[in-house]
Amino acid sequence: MNRYAKDFPILKQEVNGNPLVYLDSSATSQKPFQVIEAVEQYYKENNSNVHRGVHTLGTRATDGYEGAREKIRRFINAGSVKEIIYTRGTTTALNIVAACYARARLQEGDEILISPSEHHSNLIPWQQAARATGAELKYFTLEPDGTLDLDKAKAMINERTKLVSVAQVSNVLGTIFPVKELAEMVHRYNGVLVVDGAQSVPHMKVDVQELDCDFLAFSGHKMAGPTGIGVLYGKESLLDEMEPFEYGGEMIDTVDLYESTWKELPWKFEGGTPNIAGAVGLGAAIDYLETVGMDEVDAHDRHLAAYALEKMGEVEGVTIYGPSTNRTGLITFNVDGVHPHDVATVLDAEGIAIRAGHHCCQPLMRWLDVSATARASFYLYNDEADIDRLVQGLQKTKEYFGNVLG
Amino acid sequence: MNRYAKDFPILKQEVNGNPLVYLDSSATSQKPFQVIEAVEQYYKENNSNVHRGVHTLGTRATDGYEGAREKIRRFINAGSVKEIIYTRGTTTALNIVAACYARARLQEGDEILISPSEHHSNLIPWQQAARATGAELKYFTLEPDGTLDLDKAKAMINERTKLVSVAQVSNVLGTIFPVKELAEMVHRYNGVLVVDGAQSVPHMKVDVQELDCDFLAFSGHKMAGPTGIGVLYGKESLLDEMEPFEYGGEMIDTVDLYESTWKELPWKFEGGTPNIAGAVGLGAAIDYLETVGMDEVDAHDRHLAAYALEKMGEVEGVTIYGPSTNRTGLITFNVDGVHPHDVATVLDAEGIAIRAGHHCCQPLMRWLDVSATARASFYLYNDEADIDRLVQGLQKTKEYFGNVLG
Repeated sequence: MNRYAKDFPILKQEVNGNPLVYLDSSATSQKPFQVIEAVEQYYKENNSNVHRGVHTLGTRATDGYEGAREKIRRFINAGSVKEIIYTRGTTTALNIVAACYARARLQEGDEILISPSEHHSNLIPWQQAARATGAELKYFTLEPDGTLDLDKAKAMINERTKLVSVAQVSNVLGTIFPVKELAEMVHRYNGVLVVDGAQSVPHMKVDVQELDCDFLAFSGHKMAGPTGIGVLYGKESLLDEMEPFEYGGEMIDTVDLYESTWKELPWKFEGGTPNIAGAVGLGAAIDYLETVGMDEVDAHDRHLAAYALEKMGEVEGVTIYGPSTNRTGLITFNVDGVHPHDVATVLDAEGIAIRAGHHCCQPLMRWLDVSATARASFYLYNDEADIDRLVQGLQKTKEYFGNVLG
Repeated sequence: MNRYAKDFPILKQEVNGNPLVYLDSSATSQKPFQVIEAVEQYYKENNSNVHRGVHTLGTRATDGYEGAREKIRRFINAGSVKEIIYTRGTTTALNIVAACYARARLQEGDEILISPSEHHSNLIPWQQAARATGAELKYFTLEPDGTLDLDKAKAMINERTKLVSVAQVSNVLGTIFPVKELAEMVHRYNGVLVVDGAQSVPHMKVDVQELDCDFLAFSGHKMAGPTGIGVLYGKESLLDEMEPFEYGGEMIDTVDLYESTWKELPWKFEGGTPNIAGAVGLGAAIDYLETVGMDEVDAHDRHLAAYALEKMGEVEGVTIYGPSTNRTGLITFNVDGVHPHDVATVLDAEGIAIRAGHHCCQPLMRWLDVSATARASFYLYNDEADIDRLVQGLQKTKEYFGNVLG
């Protein structure tokens, strides 16, 4: 175990008689005891509804909830906590932008531009927004290795391009997309850039002011935090002009029988009792990641990706997808003649957890001309020994199916 | 401490030098150690993303998540788990009905009927749906004690009434509304009945088939469960015809570049990684409540309400709102000449947590002709001694402000 792995209680177990190797962090990361204890402590000492209470527990819960918001602001270097909206996760965050920004502003003749490698959550909301407004949904063309050629991208962006939305890191290819450059191109025509940060924010330093993106969506559960909590960052001027996504308590200023007015940011977008324990836990996750240091996390993940590319590349019959450099800690692959579900099943018998399927990227699967793939994804608690176990497991998979099929 | 209180770790503390008396359960309930440990165990042993994994942790997480759904189905006696949609809470659940049912079906000439006592989360979604569709939002007339006269209600329901939405229990008045009778009236004209169960499901046996309501919304955090998880129950035939609320992973069948199709119920409404730990914790909360027995919970809360009505009624200068009988465990009140925030502040110094404000019911505050009220709300961990402490605190409040003002 590496020095971070000891903080993650779940990793200290055997699965099917073998020490667990967890290589599915792109789906959801594991949680250090610091995060688990923060959630536990919240429920054991401070639990109360937020904002509305004048009693001591209410003050403590509100401090925890709003204190975590400030941690998030600092973590992504937003200018103000008004720009940090708690959501259920990345999916809700992107749906808010599609529903409250795109649908309210787009019309026939406008274009929405995304990549064919997008996760369904950064694709279907735009399909539906295009359909609802009459705007056209267009797709970047990707290079054969899954990267974006900036000149080709530039040629697709024009005065009709009102919104571009891309994942900063592809959850299948590991590709890092040039969002800073895209922001510049889009802003030239007064469009906005939406960044799906689900796979980037957990793994590298993301500075919204440096990127100059207009919206950024990410999830707590992929960055060592609890399930059910995520963030929509948006520039204050844009969020200010948007209508709320949900209506209820906490997000109002005045309510009359037939008319209501909204609270200021960020609460306008946070109707109802929020996931308070989730926010507190996400704050603890950020504390944890900052103690490690995001540069360290980034370097660690990239090192493991490079190591895995090398070692898995030596296994005959294994096809690896995505670019060979400038990628983060996930490797999507297939084993010749073996369905990825079978690869995952054999590995599971060895105690190795990987994912298999379309990874919520059906259009990308068609672009790769496969029905499904296997994916191994890494985080700070993984090390080279885990990848060695994976490679051994792949050898066993080949032997097993070689024997079965041979 | 009563026999249930010992299960709730948060209650074993002093606040401002006094043993904590928590009387704010209508805002959020406290959690027994069984629920806290279920969440902890999920993160320490089973955490993984759901549905998509073929590895062991993925199977365990999916079993926990779907197993909790079956517990919820049984708890409210729904006919099928297809009718149980996980949401962030009551607010999201009601917004889904307003956005995906009401907005898609209503038009000019149609009427939406609600009560002026509704929580903002069961009021503003209908305001906005009426505005968007041209339907008319109408209000029941309440009796002076905050109850609904069924004959008057009947007179307001007709062939234009497409949707009636009421809280089964008012979060301010404690009134229990006759939802079974309303369902019958509404169905006569083929309208639907939406029930806000936020204050009823935690406190009494709610059987959706017996009530014959079309939708029921409730929150986990008010029924001993975690924050950030709630439920929308809907009749399968209605949910089946509704479009999704959010678009993303987990809720799709096929995704093409320009077209997508949706998964079957209940997943059509659960785009993105859900609050898995929240669902598991809600399942544990239901186990806990069922071990106590909902009849016992109901009897206990009603007994405390009656005891509080009697004891608080003896304090001169205290005005209590709502009906005198057939009400659940919450008492909304004011102390003559003292702002409710000041009442709550003085009580907090005594270690007693109550709520003060408009309770997300501004229209009801105007109906009561007050700007705000105080509210003490009870749950299974409270007992008569807690109410005695509250009454002593109210005496102190009166003395304190009598001295200050006198």
